[in-house]
Amino acid sequence: MDIKKETIELHEKLKGKLTLKPKIEVNRKILSLLYTPGVAEIVKLIYENKNNVYSYTGKGNSIAIVSDGSRILGLGNKGPLAALPVMESKAFLFKYYGDVDAVPICIKTQDKDEIVKLVEDISPNFGAINIEDIEAPKCFFIVDELSKKLDIPVFHDDHHGTAIVTVAALLNSFKLVNKDIINSKIVILGAGAAGYGITKLLLKAGAKNVIVLDSKGIIHKGRENLTLSKIEIAQSTNFKGIKGSLKEAINGSDVFIGVSAQPNILTVEMIKEMNKDPIIFALTNPNPEIMPDEAVKAGAKIVATGRSDFPNQVNNVIVFPFLMRKILDEKIKKVDFEFMFEIAKKLSDMTKNLDFNHILPNVEEVRKF
Amino acid sequence: MDIKKETIELHEKLKGKLTLKPKIEVNRKILSLLYTPGVAEIVKLIYENKNNVYSYTGKGNSIAIVSDGSRILGLGNKGPLAALPVMESKAFLFKYYGDVDAVPICIKTQDKDEIVKLVEDISPNFGAINIEDIEAPKCFFIVDELSKKLDIPVFHDDHHGTAIVTVAALLNSFKLVNKDIINSKIVILGAGAAGYGITKLLLKAGAKNVIVLDSKGIIHKGRENLTLSKIEIAQSTNFKGIKGSLKEAINGSDVFIGVSAQPNILTVEMIKEMNKDPIIFALTNPNPEIMPDEAVKAGAKIVATGRSDFPNQVNNVIVFPFLMRKILDEKIKKVDFEFMFEIAKKLSDMTKNLDFNHILPNVEEVRKF
Repeated sequence: MDIKKETIELHEKLKGKLTLKPKIEVNRKILSLLYTPGVAEIVKLIYENKNNVYSYTGKGNSIAIVSDGSRILGLGNKGPLAALPVMESKAFLFKYYGDVDAVPICIKTQDKDEIVKLVEDISPNFGAINIEDIEAPKCFFIVDELSKKLDIPVFHDDHHGTAIVTVAALLNSFKLVNKDIINSKIVILGAGAAGYGITKLLLKAGAKNVIVLDSKGIIHKGRENLTLSKIEIAQSTNFKGIKGSLKEAINGSDVFIGVSAQPNILTVEMIKEMNKDPIIFALTNPNPEIMPDEAVKAGAKIVATGRSDFPNQVNNVIVFPFLMRKILDEKIKKVDFEFMFEIAKKLSDMTKNLDFNHILPNVEEVRKF
Repeated sequence: MDIKKETIELHEKLKGKLTLKPKIEVNRKILSLLYTPGVAEIVKLIYENKNNVYSYTGKGNSIAIVSDGSRILGLGNKGPLAALPVMESKAFLFKYYGDVDAVPICIKTQDKDEIVKLVEDISPNFGAINIEDIEAPKCFFIVDELSKKLDIPVFHDDHHGTAIVTVAALLNSFKLVNKDIINSKIVILGAGAAGYGITKLLLKAGAKNVIVLDSKGIIHKGRENLTLSKIEIAQSTNFKGIKGSLKEAINGSDVFIGVSAQPNILTVEMIKEMNKDPIIFALTNPNPEIMPDEAVKAGAKIVATGRSDFPNQVNNVIVFPFLMRKILDEKIKKVDFEFMFEIAKKLSDMTKNLDFNHILPNVEEVRKF
């Protein structure tokens, strides 16, 4: 099939993936309750006690998906207008799988302090905020600041969601190849929101031998001009102090995880340098670090991508709609690594008929977290 | 019926008046078109040509309803949380009658420059902006600035919508009492967004004898410390230079229009000072300037309020959903007084079975503008 042509035709036909639906039919009486004069009573109730907003409005089931378009998928900084179709897709999936009413907010400013101020200012009518496709390390600052300032949860799908689904997939992959997380060498290419989140969660899950690379090469304690999140990575990974590029890192490793925005960077030769039964997660979208057929040819035992047109899709879609449902229902304020690891284990346990082409549950198989 | 009790029960049951609805059912293939990898093609198309955003996303049918809650209905400054149920009602009516997808954005800041900056920043994914329940004169500044800065229309319902529906109702009322707009004396109590808009549109419609009052009394050229919009009112109304309070203004008038946020300020005695067949529009919500039964007792020939539980509801609901539909469909950039007067005349002409208790069409009778 011609994905490009069909995608364009479908988007042109739909013109937006969601539409609003009234929850009630109207007559003259209903109108006087819903609107004036009735609604004034609700205004007064909320003014008297702000918690009433959850009882009488949609706040508790509404979230904002905020993006400045500075890092859309693996495509880079394309700005807020070009971010909209992606945010509409996320909103669609939030609704379709999680029954969460999510609204895209694609913003013009790309200044981190202005973004914090803006999200704070628009927060009153939302029950949670989802930060999306904002480049690292800016996104970490924004999420940290907002978590401090807001009285609603701040979810960061590129960080929290990606880490959970990746670790869940890896836990199952280890079962299939009879390895374990403690004794495996894991190479992570990419140290943005996804790479940072995956690294932290793998450490939480027990990993001892992790090497992380950014676009400048292996992250180690001796490197200069590291951002805060990379300093944290340097201090908790790569205890042997290996330096160099992907070539040096991959040698003798068991797992490759690519969240690099660098298509085709992983070569057949590199995979041949890995230990027996290599696990390859080439997760950059839309074009992965290596195409699955090539990875298999090179000897990869398990291959995953972020795409739904190949087997083993390691994509947040099996996490974020369900996790946001849980966050809203249980009024969970903070998404920390303990909570994330708990969800990752639940997700891996939901996988029916685990095999080399089915390392995660299908989205239809995911149950309540 | 107990409006308060029923309103609270209905709001508690609904928890928001709208919910999102997916436009398409999903399977694995659709998912690969809607989301990754397909959606990347749409990102690229919009990045190449920003006008493509209208072809491939919901921007063209989406609007933001922005309020800081500084003047909610006639209740005053109750802040953004308490504004939410009203904005949800507006969004509901936009959808129900106009098929417009409207999203409440209730904002924390009440600073006019910050509001302009915020709306500019969130504008990319909306096809129009509706400014709502922001106090005057701040709202005029915000609407003017945004109209200059944005490439999408800025609608100000408290100003545009209220003026259109009020003038439409008045045109029909004059027919019923055999008066005309040129020779009638019209008193307008309230010089905020609604009062200013009504005044300007009445002048456009041919009114020659208009007196406007704010909370300090009659507006005239000699008054000091007038805001810009009130200076404009002083220069184009009250040519006899009458000074004083509502008592002085109402004497010998034909029409009273109340948009004052002052319940029960109009007395039976005042109506008795008016010319034959007085027309009383007591439009403040939820509690009008005089209750309809009292106005009738005092001799009013035509009485209207903003409420749907009395006859002659003069309420924007018969304008804004339909007008926004037209604005979006015809990509109308500017809502000026010429355009507003054209809509007001169309609206008055849509009234079937015109009589003293039916001076405007019901919302079900309104057709495409």
